[in-house]
Amino acid sequence: MHLFLLFLCVFAMSACGGKESNEEPMTKTPITAIAIHGGAGNLKKLNLTKDEEKAYKEALGSALSLGDSILQAGGSSEDAVIAVITFLEDSPLFNAGKGAVFSHDKKNELDAAIMLGKNLDCGAVTGLFRVKNPIRAAQLVMHKSEHILISGTGADQFAEEQGLEMVDPSYFFTTHRWEQLQEALKEDSISLDHDGEKQKPTAGLSNLWDDSKYGTVGCVALDQQGNLCAGTSTGGLTNKKHGRIGDTPLIGMGTYANNNSCAVSCTGRGEDFIRATVAYDISARMMYLKEDLKEATRYVIQDKLKSIKGRGGCIAVDTLGKVSLEFTTTGMFRAYRDGKGDQKVEIYK
Amino acid sequence: MHLFLLFLCVFAMSACGGKESNEEPMTKTPITAIAIHGGAGNLKKLNLTKDEEKAYKEALGSALSLGDSILQAGGSSEDAVIAVITFLEDSPLFNAGKGAVFSHDKKNELDAAIMLGKNLDCGAVTGLFRVKNPIRAAQLVMHKSEHILISGTGADQFAEEQGLEMVDPSYFFTTHRWEQLQEALKEDSISLDHDGEKQKPTAGLSNLWDDSKYGTVGCVALDQQGNLCAGTSTGGLTNKKHGRIGDTPLIGMGTYANNNSCAVSCTGRGEDFIRATVAYDISARMMYLKEDLKEATRYVIQDKLKSIKGRGGCIAVDTLGKVSLEFTTTGMFRAYRDGKGDQKVEIYK
Repeated sequence: MHLFLLFLCVFAMSACGGKESNEEPMTKTPITAIAIHGGAGNLKKLNLTKDEEKAYKEALGSALSLGDSILQAGGSSEDAVIAVITFLEDSPLFNAGKGAVFSHDKKNELDAAIMLGKNLDCGAVTGLFRVKNPIRAAQLVMHKSEHILISGTGADQFAEEQGLEMVDPSYFFTTHRWEQLQEALKEDSISLDHDGEKQKPTAGLSNLWDDSKYGTVGCVALDQQGNLCAGTSTGGLTNKKHGRIGDTPLIGMGTYANNNSCAVSCTGRGEDFIRATVAYDISARMMYLKEDLKEATRYVIQDKLKSIKGRGGCIAVDTLGKVSLEFTTTGMFRAYRDGKGDQKVEIYK
Repeated sequence: MHLFLLFLCVFAMSACGGKESNEEPMTKTPITAIAIHGGAGNLKKLNLTKDEEKAYKEALGSALSLGDSILQAGGSSEDAVIAVITFLEDSPLFNAGKGAVFSHDKKNELDAAIMLGKNLDCGAVTGLFRVKNPIRAAQLVMHKSEHILISGTGADQFAEEQGLEMVDPSYFFTTHRWEQLQEALKEDSISLDHDGEKQKPTAGLSNLWDDSKYGTVGCVALDQQGNLCAGTSTGGLTNKKHGRIGDTPLIGMGTYANNNSCAVSCTGRGEDFIRATVAYDISARMMYLKEDLKEATRYVIQDKLKSIKGRGGCIAVDTLGKVSLEFTTTGMFRAYRDGKGDQKVEIYK
């Protein structure tokens, strides 16, 4: 009988615990993961030049390295998201911060949001004119304000009171975005229409007309403490009117994080993302339907968003270090490094 | 054999179809339902005078009759919601339209949203200064704009272009709201703090200090075509700063409608409702967890919202004509008539 029990014990150890402990050493570093987007659009038809493609891939790669190094060193997902988005806002390549598009009133009106998965704390800003890095203003709203979403000159004032770097509105001027506005004004249209039907390459980056409409930057991250964070920043739509607010600064629409499910950042035609409650719905499907990250993002982007003719995409990460990148467009500027260490920088489908 | 078949037929008719047709005559009128709120707050401690209580109940009762008569006559849920909220906006009793509170900058900044359950179409406005009925501006955004949410002077301009009735900002001045601001300014606090600890009755309605913080009006309705609609309108928080935007104009937060689940309108501390994605989450729990309206609203308000120390409540209706009214506060101005014809006008818990 004793021999039989001994046999059972040895069998159980080899079948379960023993085997696992061989594969996963005690000293294993906690998982981290990060994903980044720089906007989705009809990128296939744009025919980026080799130089442009290289510039975008280098910027995305640098942003990825920056965020990943923070996470690998034990930094928080919040720090990684802030660093990555600040970097992308400072680049003229993306429709956020320095590269923001112009509104109908010939202004650069900037939106951003951030959310922490550990406590659902969040902050957001819309219609900033003078803050160099809108994502940092959103972060200050989260930590220093009793509000979640603030807007316009009042939001600029809050950022200034908090000591953020302010710039003259002319800082946001870039020639290619100005040319995009002129084209849009000629047609008195907001840059939502005729997706993919325009191909009017002019000098430099101004042939990114189609992309500009869905341009946004975002980052989602998982840190070694198991905490998720999501952040998004945008200049919105070229030629937008009437103080239009898109999905980016709206918690649950373009930006959401919850340690019980995932962190999500979206890019696309904001109105579609609001109607479909995209970011929160991915989280809700994981919590309520027990879908995994891939199933939830695939359903919400490829089925639900498409069913209302929505355009755009999202990046998402969960606490297992899994990463999902889904989009309905022909391309999305994106980069990731998942919990297994797989990493990629891509543009086209 | 023929006799046996005849017997079977008679048995089947009496057991199924025959019996049902006796109970539900062909001429049965389709179900309608409606619910209204005028804000939630610490109403028990306020000690409303008999006259004030009467004034609120009369206003709520009139709004209910107005909306119900539209639905009974075969009007759409959209028409009923617009009529009810317009009526409440025109009353100085509620924190919306004419009765709106003052912001820190001594302005009345108005928000509103509307959503249709049949197609998820929606429209919203934030930071209006000159539109007499913000809910009508939200309706026009839904039908006439490519955007969903517009803000500030641009939104005022849109409403004016669309032919809405504009007023001088002084139209929104009411003595009791002005006195509330003066009290708040003295303490340099936004009217979120110390819920229920203040009881500073002064003349007239100015002792509604505590209520003002959660003041909002909303209406949800089900029409004879089976279509749901939700609408909400507010002046926001007394002494709000920095262009603060609450949950009211945010689709999925303070306002949501979907014919596959329910229509919801919220009132309370907006920041809590944003963190908890209240309105959409009620819908998500019905769709994904197959909870009924009562279970979903109870969980989201009494469990989820309370778990983040959230304050406020919601009204909701489903396509069966069921109505649910949940709140964490000691009172909520409310009225309803459900699909069975039960109706009530209430203030306290």
